[in-house]
Order: sequence, then structure tokens, then C-alpha cells
Amino acid sequence: MNIPANNPNLKSWVEVPANSDFPIQNLPFGIIQTNGDSPRVASRIGDFAIDLKALFVLGYFDNMPFSREDFDTDSLNAMMMKGKEGTRKLRNRLSKLFSTEHDDLQKNEHHVSQVLVAMSEVTMLLPIQSRDYTDFYSSEQHAFNVGCLFRDPDNALLPNWKHIPVGYHGRASSIIESGVAIHRPKGQKKPPTADVPVFGQSNLLDFELETVFFTYQGKPLGDSISTKEADDYIFGMALFNDWSARDIQGWEYVPLGPFLGKSFASCVSPWIVTIDALEPFRIPGPKQDNPKILPYLEYEGEKHIDIKLDVIIQPENGEENIVGQSNYKYMYWNMNQQLAHHSVNGCNINCGDAMGSGTISGPEKGMYGSMLEISWKGTKPFKMSDGTERKFINDGDTVIMRGFSEKDGVRIGFGEVSTKVLPAK
Amino acid sequence: MNIPANNPNLKSWVEVPANSDFPIQNLPFGIIQTNGDSPRVASRIGDFAIDLKALFVLGYFDNMPFSREDFDTDSLNAMMMKGKEGTRKLRNRLSKLFSTEHDDLQKNEHHVSQVLVAMSEVTMLLPIQSRDYTDFYSSEQHAFNVGCLFRDPDNALLPNWKHIPVGYHGRASSIIESGVAIHRPKGQKKPPTADVPVFGQSNLLDFELETVFFTYQGKPLGDSISTKEADDYIFGMALFNDWSARDIQGWEYVPLGPFLGKSFASCVSPWIVTIDALEPFRIPGPKQDNPKILPYLEYEGEKHIDIKLDVIIQPENGEENIVGQSNYKYMYWNMNQQLAHHSVNGCNINCGDAMGSGTISGPEKGMYGSMLEISWKGTKPFKMSDGTERKFINDGDTVIMRGFSEKDGVRIGFGEVSTKVLPAK
Repeated sequence: MNIPANNPNLKSWVEVPANSDFPIQNLPFGIIQTNGDSPRVASRIGDFAIDLKALFVLGYFDNMPFSREDFDTDSLNAMMMKGKEGTRKLRNRLSKLFSTEHDDLQKNEHHVSQVLVAMSEVTMLLPIQSRDYTDFYSSEQHAFNVGCLFRDPDNALLPNWKHIPVGYHGRASSIIESGVAIHRPKGQKKPPTADVPVFGQSNLLDFELETVFFTYQGKPLGDSISTKEADDYIFGMALFNDWSARDIQGWEYVPLGPFLGKSFASCVSPWIVTIDALEPFRIPGPKQDNPKILPYLEYEGEKHIDIKLDVIIQPENGEENIVGQSNYKYMYWNMNQQLAHHSVNGCNINCGDAMGSGTISGPEKGMYGSMLEISWKGTKPFKMSDGTERKFINDGDTVIMRGFSEKDGVRIGFGEVSTKVLPAK
Repeated sequence: MNIPANNPNLKSWVEVPANSDFPIQNLPFGIIQTNGDSPRVASRIGDFAIDLKALFVLGYFDNMPFSREDFDTDSLNAMMMKGKEGTRKLRNRLSKLFSTEHDDLQKNEHHVSQVLVAMSEVTMLLPIQSRDYTDFYSSEQHAFNVGCLFRDPDNALLPNWKHIPVGYHGRASSIIESGVAIHRPKGQKKPPTADVPVFGQSNLLDFELETVFFTYQGKPLGDSISTKEADDYIFGMALFNDWSARDIQGWEYVPLGPFLGKSFASCVSPWIVTIDALEPFRIPGPKQDNPKILPYLEYEGEKHIDIKLDVIIQPENGEENIVGQSNYKYMYWNMNQQLAHHSVNGCNINCGDAMGSGTISGPEKGMYGSMLEISWKGTKPFKMSDGTERKFINDGDTVIMRGFSEKDGVRIGFGEVSTKVLPAK
């Protein structure tokens, strides 16, 4: 696949700091707001947001399949309705405009001043309106750890796990943007020693280190998307903290799955990194022959991706502690398989649907993606640099997730998703 | 509560057939389309749709908190954003306009001809756009039956069932209107005798006899709605067929709940009957003292409703067979409790959210709301009038659900939700 914007030799005339997540090879999409202005679609390079509404108005998107309304809006959905062909053209155009090989924009200082906005002046909003949100459970180590903790280490994986990309419907309304603080949730729970359930604040508040992908408009109800076709329906990815209240979840989830233990907040990083930008970091996935998967889940080519993932706890007024370092490459099921499975019954996928990976845990200690696993259900507290311990998340803690892919001197990053926990209301 | 439109003595100058679901005391809301016109908001009386866009344009809603856009649109959501006070005023106004006690509209034949549309000329569309859809599991007999079928009759109800209005997130995108045929879904399933799962069409296709309620705009993320406040957030109800593929569901649902066994279609009846119109049919609910429920689930007054429910199978070119007769009064948990529970963790509710009751089964045979229960997992086939049998639903069958409340000579009905099953694609 030849995607001009991915050329590792490209340089930009915009200064990009060393180790920036946002070189000219990234060019993600998000929604920005600046003081007094209405929300609009943007991209990013180095420490600047690129105002796509301004670029459109100034005529830099002539002969492209977009209208002003696609950029003068508070979500990426309208732009995404142009499909993979549309957004690929757009990113390739941005790459030209900002590369040292073209000076159409660079030479016009007045235009540059309207198009580039320092990130320090920008508020990032929720990038995509998702009507439906699905969360998968596709990291083998995570499923294994949970099986060990709650069932039997000798039969940790449930019988269906290696046959089905297990997933469930999540709550779309409580997906929020990075930077918005959340209150510790309250709910019904049944302590192991109690005879009857009680109502109160969750004491086992946990993060889940995930990624999320967002879809283009899919097929009508009744049609399916194959693993091969899936490439055309996946727009991009972000970091995703799928907050979980383990005590609420533990009491409610049999037999219909997680509900209020999850639906109080799921936090997404502000820049959607396109799958196009991630293509150079594709890697092979695990063999899926023991047991052998069904034909509708088979796929061709390399569909997994190498994305380094860190999860950090920062106590109030304290320093950052990395509590887990994982990688998206540890997924057993890839996005193409997830989307093919999701639609194999005819379920219709809409533009902007969110699909979470599930907690991503690596094969060794130190690579786990939830406090449930890191503290092994509270039995092995994590020692923080300030001398305190964490079994789960305390009030005042900020949980931060960061991630990036790197190869051949090019680093494509996601920025971060950061959420502070306030006391229960 | 004094709701003028509920006066049982009111008569309309529009002829209403005997036993109509839509006397002047009903006045539900829906979305109509007629040949060549754009979709618009309507109510109904007898065999006529009432075009609310036409009424607005003709000035009959002067001094009310609505604009033309609230009616000149393809969903009820904009109108519902005016809240309970707004929609109650609107229904009371409609009641005046169509009662024999006022002739403002009646005397103007030219206006009447623009406002009343024969139902035979109308196509009904999906009434509400739901961003999120939650399905509860609140009928005790249904939960008990499922427990007997899949677990142990002596411990049929799970430990949390009488403490929590158990629910799960459903798929909003596949909610469709009555009259749209669906294809039998395909998917992964593991027959009891097989060592490994197989892919194929569902052979255990089932309906679920449910009602659904739709919400007004709720509170911001982090806030909760009490059982008392819930009255202000519930707009109205409809009939709901939450299709289920039992073989797909059985293999996938552990541990995260139903997913593709449900997400291929959920069908809603076209007219939303307001809670206001159902107030006269309130009845007491079951005692909830063994075990005693937590205080946040307690409620005052009568919050259950007497709604007779029928579910019917009509074979291709055949006659209707009533296979189940239930009643909404058999719910253990009422809507106020469901909504209070749903939001107790701070989960935000949006305008138009759909909340299914779960399958509603009564205490005796003949009152069950799914073929799973009616045929007792296929062991007791239902004998149809044409001599055939049904364990589950056949290709070519149409499943119809009807419902109404009746008291003091007033019948408030829901019409029907009807869906034909086509062969798998």
C-alpha cells in the first residue's frame, strides 16, 4: 500500500520537537476549541494544532470531496462520512501542505497564522460522537489473569474464548474526553463477608488500559463485513481508559454482563490516529490453530500493530508512577476479526461507532493493564514512589495512559488520556 | 394528578371505532410519512393520524413552547427535549382540539382536511432515535423459568436478582420499526453434541415479549435520578420485540452477556403511548421485603401498570395463533426503579434512550413471553391451528405483539409491532 503521507523521509517546515508524538507522518484528527471560537476539526503537527476549517476557507482543500460543514463542527463524524478514500486524500493533502517539499502554504505567513494554533491555546473536545460502543475482551493474558483470579488457573480461559472475539455492548453516553475529572461512582455491592448487599461508594475503582477504534459508516442491517473488507471500515485509533468499579461489577454481572460497574465513565484520548498512519507498524498476530478458528474469522496479511502502551498513576500533587507497560501487539484478536465477528449476524455498524480492545495485558508482570491484575485482586499492592501503596485507585489520583509506535526513526504517538478521580458526590 | 386529556367522559368529533386502541384519551406520538412528503410528527385518533406539523403551521399551537422544527422532522426527539411539561401541554391541547367540547378546529373543514390523514395512506417510521439502549430482566417468572431451564429449579433465581433490577447494554443501531422484515441471523454456535463450534444460521430464533420506555433528557454525567424524580424523565412506552438467537446467545454469553444473539434486530411499535395516558391504569407492585430492597430502590405510590399483552405467530399465508398472553403488571421492578438503578452510579441518560423491560412472563403456562419458555427449551412444541408445531420461529412466520390497558370503559392501546422472518441471507 502506497500512502504518500507515510514516507519516513518527509520533513516539515513546522518545527517538531524530538520525540514528539506528532511528526508530519502522523497527522491525526481531533476537535479543537480556542477562546471564544466554536469547535472545529483539526489535525496536529509538533506543538501546533492545524485548523482544518481555516484551511478549507482559505481554499487549500479545493477539488476535494469536503464541504465547510465537515470541518465547522464539533465532531469528526461528518468528515468520516466521506469514507476511507476521503480521509486518506485529506491526510495526504495535509502532508503535502506541511512538507518541506511544498511551499504553497508556508510562503503565505498570513495564512499560516490562521492555520497553526499553539496547543497551549487549545482545548481538546471529545473527537467523535459514538452512537454505539462495543468493548471486546481480546487480550489473552488479561482473560487468563481474570480467569485465574476468579475461577481456576487450570481452566482460566473460558471454552469460547479462543473461538470468539468475546465482546459486549457498552454505554456510549458516558464516553468522555481526556482531562475531564470523574467522581468515584456509587452503587450496590456485596462484600464477600456480608450476607446482604449494601449501597455505597466503590472501593475497588480501577482503570482498564485499552485502545479504541472508530468506524466509518458500515453496511445496512442484515449485511456483514468480512475480515478483508474490514480495512475499509476502520478509521483510526485512540487510547481508552475504560473505568471499572470492581465491587459493583462483581455483584451485578451474572448473568447479563457488566453494566453499572462500567457505565459511569470511559475516557478517550483527543487525537484519532488514522489506521493509515499506523500501517508501517503492522506485525503478524498469534497463530490461531489450537483451536483452529472458523473461516469467517481468518484473515490475510499482517493485521496486528506494535503500539507501546504505558499506564501511570499520579497522586495529587505527586509524581508520575508507571504501573504498567503493555503493547497492543499482545492482542489475540485483531480489529478486522472483531469487526467481522460483530457484523456476522447482520448487525449494522454506523459512522463513529467505538470499539474498545478490552484491557491489554502483556505476558509478564509489569505488563498488566488493570489494578485488578497489577495488585492481583488487592493481594500484592503496588508500591508508589512516595511510599504509599495502591491496590486500586485513590481519590485525588490521576490516571494517565500514553502510547506510540516507533520504527525507522518515525514515532507515531497518541498523546495521552488523563483523568483525575474526585471523591464520590 | 389532574391530566385533563385523561378525562374518561371526553368524546371526540372524530369517529373512533369500538375497541379502537386510539380513543381521544390516548393521543400517542409517532412519525408518519405519506406519499411524497417528508417525515413528520403525528398523533393518532381512531383510524386517523393527526399531522402535528400541519397543526403547528395552522397556528393551533400558539403560545406553546414548540417550534416548527420540533414537528417537521423524522424523530420525536426534538419534541421530547421540551420535557414532560412540554409534551403534557401538547397532549392536553390536542385533547381540546379534538373533543366535542371545542369546535375551533372542527368547524374549519379546510383545516381538518390538512390535519387528519387516513391511516391507510400513512407509513409509520421509527419514532425515536435512541443513542443508548438498555434491556432489563425484570419479570420474575421469566427469570425463574430461565433459571429452571439452564440451572437448577431449586435455585432458579440468581442471588442478585431480587436486589438489583438486572440489566445490560443493548445495541441501539439495530432497533427498527414495526413492519420491516428481518433475515434469520447467522453466527457461531456450539451444538450440545459437538466438540467444536460451527458457523451457520440460527436454528433457535426466538422473540421476547417486552415493552420499552423512552426517556426525556436526563441529568449530567455524575448525577443520579431518584425513584421519585424518575416520573419526570419517562416519556412513554411502546411494544418491543427483542429478537433473540438462542443458539448464538448460549455459546457467546459467558462471561460478558448477550451480544450477537441479540444485536441483529429489536423491533418497536410505531406509536409511543405517553405515561400520562397510562396513569389511570397504575396498580400496586409486588412486595419487595423478602429480601428487603435497598433504600435507593424504594418508591412511593403505585408505579406498576396493568397492560394486557399478546404475542402471536402468523405462518406465511396462515392465520394468527396467540402463543402467549401476559401482562406488564407481572414486572417485579418498575420503570422508576430501573431508571434510579441505571443512574445511581452517575450514568447519564439522554433524550430518547430506550429501556426494555426484559421478557414479560406471567405466573401460569400460556402467559410466557418467549418460545424458549413456551416450548420449554424445545421439549414441548406449541401446536398451531394449521397442524404444524413450533419450538422456535420458522422462516416465513410473522411475529405480532399487541397490548392495551382498559378501565372504566376507556381502552388505551399500543397498536402492534409486527415482524416477518425471511430466510438467512
